[in-house]
Amino acid sequence: MNFSSKLIEDAVNAFASLPGIGKKTALRLVLHLAGQQPEVVEQFAETIANMRRNIRECERCHNLSDGRLCTICADNRRNQAIICVVEGIRDVMAIEDTGQYRGLYHVLGGVISPIEGIGPTELNVDSLIQRAQEEQVQEVIMAISPTIEGETTIFYISKKLRGLGVNISTIARGISFGGELEYADELTLGRSIVARVPYRGGEE
Amino acid sequence: MNFSSKLIEDAVNAFASLPGIGKKTALRLVLHLAGQQPEVVEQFAETIANMRRNIRECERCHNLSDGRLCTICADNRRNQAIICVVEGIRDVMAIEDTGQYRGLYHVLGGVISPIEGIGPTELNVDSLIQRAQEEQVQEVIMAISPTIEGETTIFYISKKLRGLGVNISTIARGISFGGELEYADELTLGRSIVARVPYRGGEE
Repeated sequence: MNFSSKLIEDAVNAFASLPGIGKKTALRLVLHLAGQQPEVVEQFAETIANMRRNIRECERCHNLSDGRLCTICADNRRNQAIICVVEGIRDVMAIEDTGQYRGLYHVLGGVISPIEGIGPTELNVDSLIQRAQEEQVQEVIMAISPTIEGETTIFYISKKLRGLGVNISTIARGISFGGELEYADELTLGRSIVARVPYRGGEE
Repeated sequence: MNFSSKLIEDAVNAFASLPGIGKKTALRLVLHLAGQQPEVVEQFAETIANMRRNIRECERCHNLSDGRLCTICADNRRNQAIICVVEGIRDVMAIEDTGQYRGLYHVLGGVISPIEGIGPTELNVDSLIQRAQEEQVQEVIMAISPTIEGETTIFYISKKLRGLGVNISTIARGISFGGELEYADELTLGRSIVARVPYRGGEE
């Protein structure tokens, strides 16, 4: 693309360095910003830079945080006895959005994957074990993706937690709400039959 | 969405204020930047802010420019006798990308649209007439979208240019290269037959 302006070209390349943003989209964004008031663009840039300057990892659960502890860990109305173990911060957001969980989290930062060279030491496993030892934890919920790597990770962590008097659970697997049976994969469908639950709809 | 971080939330809102960027995409971009080195993000923000701080409108053709004149106007190897009139800076880029044009441009900033309250005075028409009077212009090419507003704009400008000894042309309309006849709209197909050109392929 021929920008006939170094300023535009640099800004397009900056946006195009972001994941999923191509040159055309980047150009659209840059031309939009070029037409905005300078203060607006200054504010946009400062907001982004300020985010990176001040964002931290929560010292307790490794969630993204504005301070030493994230807002979830700092909220003492939440149930401190349950820890939900997730792969990443997006999972925290997804579970928070459901409004169904009022305990704490622990962000692993990934799953064990020998192929990608990610072992337990690359993940926040030790700090989870430490929390299970030091905090009054009654239950650890494994909210990890049901992949081979995920199952390996669950197995590894549950072995480490053994003997600490902590109940371990995993999130329920099965057919999605609104999901159609014929499009479900065999494994999910098979397991959902094996792990069937009593129907209570017809009870008095 | 529940971000549990004001810094992340502000940055997501900043990105989501851009056209075509929704909250989910904004979050993806922000989490990407949150994982980058601070210097990288600082540089990203500074590139964007610097663009807006220093970008100007070319005093001659109204193209975006880093200095008083844009690189196209400042390039004296280009044919100064031809001006290609376009609606916006994107059109300049599109025509430059073809590599088929070596004259100058004039960016109108839109087309005449009574419905949207855009009259000739809202557009860079006067400066075009002035250029036609003061510069050694031989031809003005109207590279304007073939809409009703576009045709109105071409008509208005051509009337204004009358008597200045300037040839006026419009870009060729017709079936796109690679376009299939049966999918062409009636108007384009009809006009392409009326405006047929002699075939020279079989000549010796």
